[in-house]
Amino acid sequence: MQNKAITSRDVDFGKWYTDVVRAAKLANYSNVKGCITIEPNGYAIWERIQSVLDAKFKELGHKNVYMPVLIPENLMKKEGELINGFAPEVAWVTQGGEKELEERMCIRPTSETLFSDYYSSVVRSYKDLPMKYNQWCNVMRWEKETRPFLRSREFLWQEGHTIHATEAEAIEEVNQMLEVYKWFFEEYLAIPVITGKKTDKEKFAGAEYTLTVEALMYNGVCLQSGTSHYFGQKFSKAYDITFANKDNKLEHVYQTSWGVSTRMIGGLIMVHSDDAGLVLPPKIAPTQVVIIPIGNSSKVNYLVEKYSEELKGKYSITIDDSDKSPGFKFAEAEVNGIPVRIEIGERDLENDHITLVRRDTRERITVSKNCDIVAEVTNLLNTIQKDMYNRALARNNAYTFEAHNLDEVKKIMDVHPGFIKGMWCGSRECEDKMKEIKGLKSRCIVNDGKIDDKCIVCGRDAKDLVYWGIQY
Amino acid sequence: MQNKAITSRDVDFGKWYTDVVRAAKLANYSNVKGCITIEPNGYAIWERIQSVLDAKFKELGHKNVYMPVLIPENLMKKEGELINGFAPEVAWVTQGGEKELEERMCIRPTSETLFSDYYSSVVRSYKDLPMKYNQWCNVMRWEKETRPFLRSREFLWQEGHTIHATEAEAIEEVNQMLEVYKWFFEEYLAIPVITGKKTDKEKFAGAEYTLTVEALMYNGVCLQSGTSHYFGQKFSKAYDITFANKDNKLEHVYQTSWGVSTRMIGGLIMVHSDDAGLVLPPKIAPTQVVIIPIGNSSKVNYLVEKYSEELKGKYSITIDDSDKSPGFKFAEAEVNGIPVRIEIGERDLENDHITLVRRDTRERITVSKNCDIVAEVTNLLNTIQKDMYNRALARNNAYTFEAHNLDEVKKIMDVHPGFIKGMWCGSRECEDKMKEIKGLKSRCIVNDGKIDDKCIVCGRDAKDLVYWGIQY
Repeated sequence: MQNKAITSRDVDFGKWYTDVVRAAKLANYSNVKGCITIEPNGYAIWERIQSVLDAKFKELGHKNVYMPVLIPENLMKKEGELINGFAPEVAWVTQGGEKELEERMCIRPTSETLFSDYYSSVVRSYKDLPMKYNQWCNVMRWEKETRPFLRSREFLWQEGHTIHATEAEAIEEVNQMLEVYKWFFEEYLAIPVITGKKTDKEKFAGAEYTLTVEALMYNGVCLQSGTSHYFGQKFSKAYDITFANKDNKLEHVYQTSWGVSTRMIGGLIMVHSDDAGLVLPPKIAPTQVVIIPIGNSSKVNYLVEKYSEELKGKYSITIDDSDKSPGFKFAEAEVNGIPVRIEIGERDLENDHITLVRRDTRERITVSKNCDIVAEVTNLLNTIQKDMYNRALARNNAYTFEAHNLDEVKKIMDVHPGFIKGMWCGSRECEDKMKEIKGLKSRCIVNDGKIDDKCIVCGRDAKDLVYWGIQY
Repeated sequence: MQNKAITSRDVDFGKWYTDVVRAAKLANYSNVKGCITIEPNGYAIWERIQSVLDAKFKELGHKNVYMPVLIPENLMKKEGELINGFAPEVAWVTQGGEKELEERMCIRPTSETLFSDYYSSVVRSYKDLPMKYNQWCNVMRWEKETRPFLRSREFLWQEGHTIHATEAEAIEEVNQMLEVYKWFFEEYLAIPVITGKKTDKEKFAGAEYTLTVEALMYNGVCLQSGTSHYFGQKFSKAYDITFANKDNKLEHVYQTSWGVSTRMIGGLIMVHSDDAGLVLPPKIAPTQVVIIPIGNSSKVNYLVEKYSEELKGKYSITIDDSDKSPGFKFAEAEVNGIPVRIEIGERDLENDHITLVRRDTRERITVSKNCDIVAEVTNLLNTIQKDMYNRALARNNAYTFEAHNLDEVKKIMDVHPGFIKGMWCGSRECEDKMKEIKGLKSRCIVNDGKIDDKCIVCGRDAKDLVYWGIQY
C-alpha cells in the first residue's frame, strides 16, 4: 500500500527518501541551513544504536570521555594532512562574547587533534598503555549539499581514539573495531556489508590507512557506513605523544580512531524501507510491537491487557487505544516501521482468532486468541530480522557485478548501479578515470578474490581487487 | 588520611577542589581555554546521572530529540530578553569553510529559540499538545572565569522544553520537574536542597519566573544546581507557536524549560568529598565495590572469586588484582570514591575474617568470611547513602542562619558563609544592597515561613522570605 505522503521509491528515490524521513517523523528541516532537527522517532533509533554499540565498546575495554567542541587553529594544524583535508569544511568561531578572538577556533569536524593533545599530556609509561577512549558527540562539517542523516553540516557520532605501545596492538584494534561495525550492521541493522581498505585517494586525511564498512542501498548507490583508521605514529609524532618503554626509552605511541554516525539511520531507511514508510529491523526498532484494539468490547480489552502484560518487559510494546480509526492506526504503525502489529477485533474473536501483521512483508497471520503470544511474537520478530537481512543480501548479490574493462563498466552503469568488482593497478590515474563514469569511486580494496590479471582501466598488471560504486 | 596530591580542604578550599578533580581523574584542563576534558572517571558519573534522570523523564512522558548546535543571529533575537541576557557570553561562528557567513550564528547557550522555532513549524491543533521534549547536549557560554564542572565555557546538560494548551498544565510541568530535580538530588546525590522561586533579578532571561534547586557546599558557598522556567506565552508570541483549540480558535501555547548540567558533578565533590579524595554516594557511584586481595594464596583467591560471583549483577564491582602494593590500592580506591572496599588478606583469614571499609567514614568493619556478602554490602551501601545525606543535611542546618538586619548579616558572614534566611520587601534596591556584603545574592524566595515583618535591608514591610548566599 502506498502512503499518500510518500512518493514511490521507484519513481523518485531521492524524493521517496525525504518523504519517508518526514512521514515517519524522524527528522525535520530546521531554519539552520544544512542542519536538521532529529525528532523523537529518529532520536529513539539513535538511542537504540548507542545502547548496543556502547555496551560492546565497553565490553572490549573502551571508556567514554568528553573533549571540547572547539579546536584552536594552531592545535588543528599541528598535523598537516588533517587540516588540509578538513580546512574547506570547518566552521570557525572568531568571536567570544563581545570580543574578537586572538586565535580563531573551529567546531570539531573530528577530534584526533584534541585526543592527541590530551594523550600527550597524560601518558608517561608503557604501564599507562593502551588507552582506549571513545566519545559520543556532535561534529560539524560545512557541507554544501545536504540530505537528512546522510550528509548534514552537523551530525551525531561516536569517535573512538586509542593509543598503544606497539604497532601490532594498534593494528589489532583497527581490525577489531571494523569487525564490531560489521557485526553491528549485519546482526542489528540487518544490512550486509563489504569491508576492506580505502585507496590512498579515499582514505582519511592523516591516516596511514583506512578500513571501511560499505553498504549498498536499495537503488544501487553505495554508502560509506563506518571507518576504522590506523595512524601509526603520524599524530603521536606531530603531537609528541611519547611513553617510556620497558627499557625506559622514550617511544611514540601507535594510534587508531574509528567512528560511525547518525548516517546509519539514513542507511537503514535506504536499505529496508518501502512506499508505506519506514521498515525497521526488530533488533533496532524502538517499538517492536504495537497492539491495536478494534472496537471497545470487554473481550477485546481483556486480550489487549493480557497480551500486553505478557509481552511487557520482554519486548518494547505500545498500545494504540486512541480514538483514531483502525485504518488510520494501521497506516501509522506502518509508516513508523513497527515490526509487528497485533490486531484484536471483535469479528476475529468470533472465530477465537487474532491477527498478527508483519511490517516488512505486510503478511497477515491469523492465530488463535489462546496462543502463547510471547512465543508467536518472538518467532515472528526473529523471522523478520533474518528475512530482512536475507532480502538485503540477495539484493546486494543481484547488484554486485564483475567488470574487466571500462566498456563493461559503462554497460553495467547504464542498466543499474551497484557494487562493481574490478581489478586495479594501484594508480591514482586509473582511479580518476573510473570517476569519469558517472562519478564511480573506489569503495574499498578487498583481500579475497582475484577476477582478472589486468587493471580494469589501463590493462596493465593489476594489484588488487576493488569494489567500485557511486556514493552518497 | 591526607592524600599527598590533595591540598587540605580546610586550608584552601578552591585548591582542594581542583586537586580532587585531578587526583580522582575526573577532568583535565585542555588547551582550549575555559574548556575541560572530562576523563573516564568523571564521564562515568555523568553517565550514571543521565541514566537515572533520562528514565525518569521518559516515565513522565518526555521524549528525546536533537536540535542544531548553531543558532542564526536573527532567530536568536526574536525574543528580546533572551538575547540581551546571553549576548555577552555567546561564541559566534562567522566563517563556514572558506567563506564568510552572510549571517553569523552562535553556538547554543540554551535552546529555547530552536525549540520554539521547531514547535511553531509542527504544532497545529490542541490534539498535538502537550509536546514534552528533552535533549542531552553540549552548550557554550563564554565565561571569563572558569572552574572544572562548576563553570566552564562548554558544558554538558539536558534541557527539557515543553509546550502546553493551558497555563495550568504548563505550571504543573514546571513544578513537577522541580520536584524531579529535588528528588534526584536528595535520593541519588545525597544532597539536601532548598527549592523556591528566583527573584526577578536572578531569573532566567525571558522567563516569566524561574524555580530553582539550591545546594550548600561544604564551605558554605551556594550552588544553583538546577532550574525550571515558566515562560507563559513570551516565546510562543515571539516565535508564533499557535494551535487551534477545541473551538477551532488560534491560541498561543504555554511553555516551559528546565535543565541540569555537569555542574552537578562539582556539587557532588564540594558536598561530600574530603582530603583523601572523592566520596561518592553509592546510588550514583559508577563503581560501588572494589575487592582487593592482599597476597596471592589460594584461600584469598577463592574468596575473591566467590564474592565477585555473588555481587556481580547486583552491584557494580571491580577487582584490583594488579601488582601494586595493598597500600597503593587502598589509596587509589579512596581517591576514586568507591563507596565500599572489601579487603581479603591472609592474616584476617587466619581468624576467618575479612574487612569491609566504608569510604565515607573510613570505618573498618570486620566480618566473618562466611558472611552473606550480598547482605553485608547491601546493608553497608544503604547506610552510607543515608548517612551521607544526613551529614550533609546536618551541615546545611548548621550553616543556615536567620538574620533580621544588615548588621546580623555582616556578623554571620564574618564567621562562616551559608544560607541566610531574611525577609525582603521585594525591591531591587534592597537586593543590590545585600550584594555589597561579600557578594550575597538572593538564592530563592521560599513559600513557607516568615521570620519577621520587616525587610532585612530597608526595614519596610516585608513581602517574602528569601534565602541569601554567596555563590559559585
